[in-house]
Amino acid sequence: MNDVISTILNHRSIRHFEDKPLTDEQIHTIVSCAQAAATSSFIQAYSIIGVKDKEKKKKLAELAGNQEYVEKNGCFFVFCADLYRHTIIGKKEQKNVASSLESTEKFMVAMIDTSLAAQNAAIAAESLGLGICYIGGIRNNLEEVKKLLHLPDRVIPLFGLAVGYPSHITDKKPRLPLKHVFHVDQYEQDMERYNRQLDEYDQLISEYYETRTNGQRKDRWTQQIANMLSKQNRMYMKEFIQKNKLDLH
Amino acid sequence: MNDVISTILNHRSIRHFEDKPLTDEQIHTIVSCAQAAATSSFIQAYSIIGVKDKEKKKKLAELAGNQEYVEKNGCFFVFCADLYRHTIIGKKEQKNVASSLESTEKFMVAMIDTSLAAQNAAIAAESLGLGICYIGGIRNNLEEVKKLLHLPDRVIPLFGLAVGYPSHITDKKPRLPLKHVFHVDQYEQDMERYNRQLDEYDQLISEYYETRTNGQRKDRWTQQIANMLSKQNRMYMKEFIQKNKLDLH
Repeated sequence: MNDVISTILNHRSIRHFEDKPLTDEQIHTIVSCAQAAATSSFIQAYSIIGVKDKEKKKKLAELAGNQEYVEKNGCFFVFCADLYRHTIIGKKEQKNVASSLESTEKFMVAMIDTSLAAQNAAIAAESLGLGICYIGGIRNNLEEVKKLLHLPDRVIPLFGLAVGYPSHITDKKPRLPLKHVFHVDQYEQDMERYNRQLDEYDQLISEYYETRTNGQRKDRWTQQIANMLSKQNRMYMKEFIQKNKLDLH
Repeated sequence: MNDVISTILNHRSIRHFEDKPLTDEQIHTIVSCAQAAATSSFIQAYSIIGVKDKEKKKKLAELAGNQEYVEKNGCFFVFCADLYRHTIIGKKEQKNVASSLESTEKFMVAMIDTSLAAQNAAIAAESLGLGICYIGGIRNNLEEVKKLLHLPDRVIPLFGLAVGYPSHITDKKPRLPLKHVFHVDQYEQDMERYNRQLDEYDQLISEYYETRTNGQRKDRWTQQIANMLSKQNRMYMKEFIQKNKLDLH
């Protein structure tokens, strides 16, 4: 196994960091790696806000549901889908690009571009001995996040990435069975097998929690996920995205 | 520079592959790496179809706009946002999850999850000496792609990933200036600097094309992108996604 594969397979989310900021050189490396990711038709539809200001980090931590590690880390990166740049480009080149930029297709492109870049950043950081945690919680209140970071229209913060020196290492969580996620030539057609895989995984996850919590918790994966999905969450998103002139048609 | 960083920074898209299939072991490693990526609230909202069947690959190549490397490679992976799994989970656990699954928020979560997994797969493949190319062209006709791969509702193919042994290595394309993409504490407020960065990059890209094509081509980046965006593309997407019971509210 090479170093790249072992770094990737060794991933776990880190939620406790030392009080030690990243150096500019580390940040430069992480962002350069983000930029090296593939980008759809060379569109480069993202921006990254590196939040260093302590007050801003504190505010972001509150907005993300009082997650301490949003405030306490080495640097907090906010990954944004960015089609504002392309609005400017349209003006510069005197081309009518609005209809494209407002389409669901380009909203998808921007989200994919941003996420590919972020995962490069995450892996690069981990290879430097740093820990990372993705923070979807910033989507709790994107209006406030946008104001705080002075983001223009068509720039949507998708998630944060807390990066820093780990002070506590967590366990890796077992993933779905590979065969449940990877299908050859067509999607699984045998629903009996499909459900059996879920049952086996439920058993595995239940045992994982039981061991880790000394028997206090033993929920199954499907139970945990169905509970989460039965509650509505961030239902303002469609309106927010469309107010930002994206995903309109 | 460690091996992980150098692998990431060395990325370029490969469009010519040897006629040599990946081994099952290589595929297993690549998919395991994909699965090791972070996943929002443990939701694991993606599936990967590994297309090995020659006829299916040929058909996909046609659908993607006659891109030969979709047919000729070591394996063609189709990365799909998958909330069908969660429809099944809802039934299994007798929870009403439809409203969640139909939300823009969960559509975004599924796209982000899928893309993070894909980038791990891409980096893992490159670390094994393989080349990769993301294929957005499969979004030209998702209805046909879905039929070909027997994908159920709420499974959306986002892009393909052609992986194989490179037979021709291309140049790396210079990215936007780091400072244009990375902003500290707030989005760039100085529009003069913002536009100057675009001008400098235009110059760089123009020279890049000129050198590479012996002077036959010297388009600027903003020109290229504005031209692309002035044409409407895949405008059926919104209707298609919503027909698949996603991004509805």
